[in-house]
Amino acid sequence: MDDAASPLDVEDLRARVRKALDAFLGGCTPALDGIGPETTLLGDAVVSLLSGGKRLRPAFCYWGWRAAGGPDCEEIVRAATALELVQGCALIHDDVMDGSDTRRGQPAVHRRFATLHRSEGWRGDPEAFGTGAAILAGDLCLTWADELLFASGLPMETLLAAKPVYDAMRTELMAGQYLDLLEQAVGGGSVPRAERVIRYKSARYTVERPLHLGAVLAGGPPEVVDALRAYGAPLGEAFQLRDDVLGVFGDPAETGKPAGDDLREGKQTVLVALTLERATPQDAATLRRLLGDPHLSTDGVRDLRQVIASSGALDRVEELIAERTGRAVSALAGSPVTDEARAVLAALAVAATERRG
Amino acid sequence: MDDAASPLDVEDLRARVRKALDAFLGGCTPALDGIGPETTLLGDAVVSLLSGGKRLRPAFCYWGWRAAGGPDCEEIVRAATALELVQGCALIHDDVMDGSDTRRGQPAVHRRFATLHRSEGWRGDPEAFGTGAAILAGDLCLTWADELLFASGLPMETLLAAKPVYDAMRTELMAGQYLDLLEQAVGGGSVPRAERVIRYKSARYTVERPLHLGAVLAGGPPEVVDALRAYGAPLGEAFQLRDDVLGVFGDPAETGKPAGDDLREGKQTVLVALTLERATPQDAATLRRLLGDPHLSTDGVRDLRQVIASSGALDRVEELIAERTGRAVSALAGSPVTDEARAVLAALAVAATERRG
Repeated sequence: MDDAASPLDVEDLRARVRKALDAFLGGCTPALDGIGPETTLLGDAVVSLLSGGKRLRPAFCYWGWRAAGGPDCEEIVRAATALELVQGCALIHDDVMDGSDTRRGQPAVHRRFATLHRSEGWRGDPEAFGTGAAILAGDLCLTWADELLFASGLPMETLLAAKPVYDAMRTELMAGQYLDLLEQAVGGGSVPRAERVIRYKSARYTVERPLHLGAVLAGGPPEVVDALRAYGAPLGEAFQLRDDVLGVFGDPAETGKPAGDDLREGKQTVLVALTLERATPQDAATLRRLLGDPHLSTDGVRDLRQVIASSGALDRVEELIAERTGRAVSALAGSPVTDEARAVLAALAVAATERRG
Repeated sequence: MDDAASPLDVEDLRARVRKALDAFLGGCTPALDGIGPETTLLGDAVVSLLSGGKRLRPAFCYWGWRAAGGPDCEEIVRAATALELVQGCALIHDDVMDGSDTRRGQPAVHRRFATLHRSEGWRGDPEAFGTGAAILAGDLCLTWADELLFASGLPMETLLAAKPVYDAMRTELMAGQYLDLLEQAVGGGSVPRAERVIRYKSARYTVERPLHLGAVLAGGPPEVVDALRAYGAPLGEAFQLRDDVLGVFGDPAETGKPAGDDLREGKQTVLVALTLERATPQDAATLRRLLGDPHLSTDGVRDLRQVIASSGALDRVEELIAERTGRAVSALAGSPVTDEARAVLAALAVAATERRG
């Protein structure tokens, strides 16, 4: 870490994002209440989901702004916080699509509403009710995201100049999620195809576009925007590669998801594709057979972890993470971003890729 | 109809909305193609769904603008067309929530992707794949809607002044849909509760807010906005009451949905609530027993139609439709809207409430 103040800055920003989110969502509840008091449960589910999280996307947006010379102010914190709401939509809808039970150590939103349905003894299928409510809660998040962006207090010309970046990010997110779904359906298995999924679903969406958005909001010159994107693209890939490792090897107490969840969901990650390339024929067959089995046991998870590690794929992914994180940090070396931003972005690169949850 | 030119205007506007939609969606496909050629199927599904439709929401938005003195121009047509994309999201997600098979005479989007999965012999559950793809296609529609609104070419101050109306409309739509889901789960049965659902899910969203949006985009004075909303609120209720009648008595060739679809879905409409209030105890028990049965036969639909009609509820709903449509048209009588707009809005009131599909 180049600068001792950086982790503090990151922590402090997280608290400010939380405050901006609470203030905004606090205003959404009365609007829902006016429509029907029962609908405030949708807002409560969003509040509860978004009370946690690493706030990485707002951090990248905020530091994209600062790197491009924007001054510290609450307006950019609010604009950056809009990305947490986009992420709220992504998480809620993703959990429906994957049939996930938990998120951030809590029941997934669709499970929460299914439980409500069951405990109230309502008519019809509790799961269908949960799915419906979660689709709507995600739609509300997506709606509220641009509401917060436009209510951030940033000058309107600035917001309008940055909207195409925001729009591209949303389309990349949705299309990337579709590619992810498709890879699981098709059976995937190739490294280039798995890399294409992470480029859009995560690299652009989580790192490159938030930085890009912040820099354009600050009116940064093209060379700053280019440097930030050159940092963001490989870092975003490294971020997702870490996520893929945690999806197999992560500790549930830190990830907030069951151990080996990605294996049960049959995620066609780079880690899986590399294992299929490198494992013995027998091990590769085991992986092909067990991957995507929703009832995979703890022993099955342990066996697949063994297959993945002994193939050398885990080490290779760790190398890729280190290589891409290095490439990201180097991209900033000679760039015209402020020294403070360079130091914090170096710290964020570590935070995004050395995390445990 | 007060003015012979009105139906032509309505028809002409429909063609212009179609053109604006085609131009916009035509630009979305290359963006998807750049992410991955397979993702263009999401765009194709949206194009196909939105090739049909009555274009009522854009019509109300456009005529809200004209009523407030806005000149005819392509900019307002494009802005109004954004509402078709919001509606695309609502339809796609609603069909997932209701498990509907068809929409506008075509397979629902989730069925379309489930069929693709099945015909390609992919891994996993075709229905889950269809649901996932449809959630993402709906999210893209919601994303693209405000993209089109902001790319309409209307002055930015105008768009920003109108955005709170657009935001309120989206929140009302999502919260109203939740109330609808909840009424089916709780079992509903009361007229005031059913009326609350249609107020938000349809009346505000389909008529009042589009008019409001158009009038605010035109910078209309408060008395024009108030008059339009006084027309829109009862007309929107009448629109939904007609929809409820068509959901039970409609001809599939005209509605694009199977006969009696609302009965199988267990929709707690005003029509159903009035029947429960007015039917003989035996008929009410039959309705309670069969409503929401997904396997309700053609004979079952015929029996329930008989129960609803003989209770007097159908006649009462027709009275309510006439009364509210009349109230809507009267609200314009002494209002400061242009004569041309008044004539077209009178024609639209008829189109929205006397339709067969």
